[in-house]
Amino acid sequence: MTLMDQARNNEVSKLIEEVAKYEQLSTDFIIKGIAEGSIVIPKNVNRIQKMPRAIGAGLKTKINANLGTSPDHINIKEELEKMNIAVKYGADAIMDLSTGGNLTEMRKEILAQCPVQVGTVPIYQVACETVRGGKKKISQMDSELMFDVIEEQAEQGVDFMTIHCGVNMETVSMLDRQPRLMGVVSRGGSFLAKWIRANKKENPYYEQYDRLLKIAKKYDVTLSLGDGFRPGGTPDATDGPQIAELSILGELALRARKEGVQVMIEGPGHIPLDQVQANVLLAKRMTHNSPLYFLGPLVTDIAPGYDHITSAIGGAMAASYGVDFICYVTPAEHLRLPDINDVKEGVIASKISAHAADIVKNVKGAREQDYMMSKYRKERNWEKQREYCIDPIKFDEERAKIAPNLKDTCSMCGEFCSMRDEE
Amino acid sequence: MTLMDQARNNEVSKLIEEVAKYEQLSTDFIIKGIAEGSIVIPKNVNRIQKMPRAIGAGLKTKINANLGTSPDHINIKEELEKMNIAVKYGADAIMDLSTGGNLTEMRKEILAQCPVQVGTVPIYQVACETVRGGKKKISQMDSELMFDVIEEQAEQGVDFMTIHCGVNMETVSMLDRQPRLMGVVSRGGSFLAKWIRANKKENPYYEQYDRLLKIAKKYDVTLSLGDGFRPGGTPDATDGPQIAELSILGELALRARKEGVQVMIEGPGHIPLDQVQANVLLAKRMTHNSPLYFLGPLVTDIAPGYDHITSAIGGAMAASYGVDFICYVTPAEHLRLPDINDVKEGVIASKISAHAADIVKNVKGAREQDYMMSKYRKERNWEKQREYCIDPIKFDEERAKIAPNLKDTCSMCGEFCSMRDEE
Repeated sequence: MTLMDQARNNEVSKLIEEVAKYEQLSTDFIIKGIAEGSIVIPKNVNRIQKMPRAIGAGLKTKINANLGTSPDHINIKEELEKMNIAVKYGADAIMDLSTGGNLTEMRKEILAQCPVQVGTVPIYQVACETVRGGKKKISQMDSELMFDVIEEQAEQGVDFMTIHCGVNMETVSMLDRQPRLMGVVSRGGSFLAKWIRANKKENPYYEQYDRLLKIAKKYDVTLSLGDGFRPGGTPDATDGPQIAELSILGELALRARKEGVQVMIEGPGHIPLDQVQANVLLAKRMTHNSPLYFLGPLVTDIAPGYDHITSAIGGAMAASYGVDFICYVTPAEHLRLPDINDVKEGVIASKISAHAADIVKNVKGAREQDYMMSKYRKERNWEKQREYCIDPIKFDEERAKIAPNLKDTCSMCGEFCSMRDEE
Repeated sequence: MTLMDQARNNEVSKLIEEVAKYEQLSTDFIIKGIAEGSIVIPKNVNRIQKMPRAIGAGLKTKINANLGTSPDHINIKEELEKMNIAVKYGADAIMDLSTGGNLTEMRKEILAQCPVQVGTVPIYQVACETVRGGKKKISQMDSELMFDVIEEQAEQGVDFMTIHCGVNMETVSMLDRQPRLMGVVSRGGSFLAKWIRANKKENPYYEQYDRLLKIAKKYDVTLSLGDGFRPGGTPDATDGPQIAELSILGELALRARKEGVQVMIEGPGHIPLDQVQANVLLAKRMTHNSPLYFLGPLVTDIAPGYDHITSAIGGAMAASYGVDFICYVTPAEHLRLPDINDVKEGVIASKISAHAADIVKNVKGAREQDYMMSKYRKERNWEKQREYCIDPIKFDEERAKIAPNLKDTCSMCGEFCSMRDEE
């Protein structure tokens, strides 16, 4: 029985209790959400998670950190360090997006060591195995391999998988009729679009969706239906292909729910600020209140080197409008593979977005943290402030850089601190 | 004749032409805005500005960088370096908030070297002169000195001045009737609140507002009516004292306009994300469409060390709803005086906010930049991308850190880059 089946039977497991406790909510609330499909707990039957987390309506906004090797940079130890730092600073999920070196080994290490849920994009492995040695092209990916890889990864214990089921013959052909500036920028989406175009055949994950559901059900893998047509630049946001794909994902979500398979829906991408709310509303509505997993969104395209900030803006807004799960963006986005420091910066920026949204979502405990921080700021109680802040280590380091003469102030205003009651 | 008087006479000066050219708008549009009070060009008659900038409705969102010595850290050379780096990365205005060392000398240097408009908060100088030597307290500030300092700074050439005219006996007494967590967090506002409480007298800047207008008119100083009651923590946002002060500032704006004195209105502060739009709407309406100058807003209180990000979120939203001028917030906010690198990070974060809003405001040239950036990203033309990005130096540095094997990709995806058309 999957978690969804159990929820429909009203079973209160230890997992549900743990998750409910973390959210400061009732087990009833969690179970009802899972049964309806508005909440998921990505957890493979073969996986042990020290810190299980639910994602969805009414819960704390969660964040994901991507890591993994690339063909240009392969260092398993470094990726594990990224994992540790991401979790330390508050990542609720890790995605292993490796495309360089021994993918199975890398994934095995992450699954063994990671305390939180782990996701993957299986088509990356299919692509890597296809092109290695230079004999075959992406368009020659074997459709059986597409399912074998999913079975392999599911058996290994992967908790959630991004599958680009909405990149199909219809949506790909829409790109010709409704051209966009950037085309398909999703890596996995682009593999499948190339495959469809070259082979003039339907996307196997779409065509054989029931087969996919069967594997997902067997291992209780949560499907993260990928947005292959997410806008890769603000000029492409909210266009026909993007919304057409969303509609397909909405249908597929219903089919998954019927089989007791948990589903979340991935979202854009690059979106101008004034289109963020409409995108969230559309995605929630068209996917029947599925949990939404947004990548950013980035509200401008012109800030490579600072895309953790462009994404923090869009992410905070999106989450406040109802997005449940934010994929971090690091300062390295659009420029290179992130390093360890980028991972930290990316996680913290997303954490800020998630928290700013949680204040507005009335998530339990969120406002209290700001209240306590503000109270201790007013009292100039620096010891207590550090307890409530997002990065106590940075708090100490930065404050010490230009230390104040009066210990109860900071060097910005010194004796003129507005918080001092002295005349 | 002030700029406002000239505008009402429909005079097209070289300054107006320059500003209109920068905005890619007609001189008529600028003149009409200035005449009505929805646009200001802060420029003292005694000042030469290499890069004059207008602020207000229909224009590019502008950003300000604060700098200046504190009692704990006094280094004029370093502050001038901050000024240069701020302007290099796109600051449209500089405020000299010095409170340590020789304030007049510091200001003289800034006014001589700064290519953009310069603002101050004159009450800081009044406070410094009052408490120096330890003989007097803030509450013993001399009301004549309050005006002498303004005249001195105006004569020196300061283009705009923050004056906390709305901190008066009525609004201060409201704090007792409608208590808030953080009290008065504005530094200048707190000086005047202390003065009012201790002396049981009215704020001289409010009581003798006509005298203030007379000096402003003489030197054509733009008044930036300060928000002494801005919320210093999200729990205090949008409360009675804040809105009462805003109403007073609205009245004072009308009186200034009548005298041909340009006015802008300062705004909060710390505001939860879902209150940002209401704050902008209230401020625009209650101040009769005056240009709005917001400090942030910061959408959460818990991220000291990262408040350039919390502020970028609020700033982008606020500007998209109509704020015209954003005061930057650096990563050092709430912890210490910013250093040179903080200034750069703060300016860039604000610039991102301003640009993300300008896309939505339909500001001329804004969308084009994102379009070109996206186009060259799709083409994997890295040379051209750097021309359209916000920080070309960082663009090169970051890309080189983990260089790609294929020159036309980056090390994130390498050969699997979704932008490559190769199969």
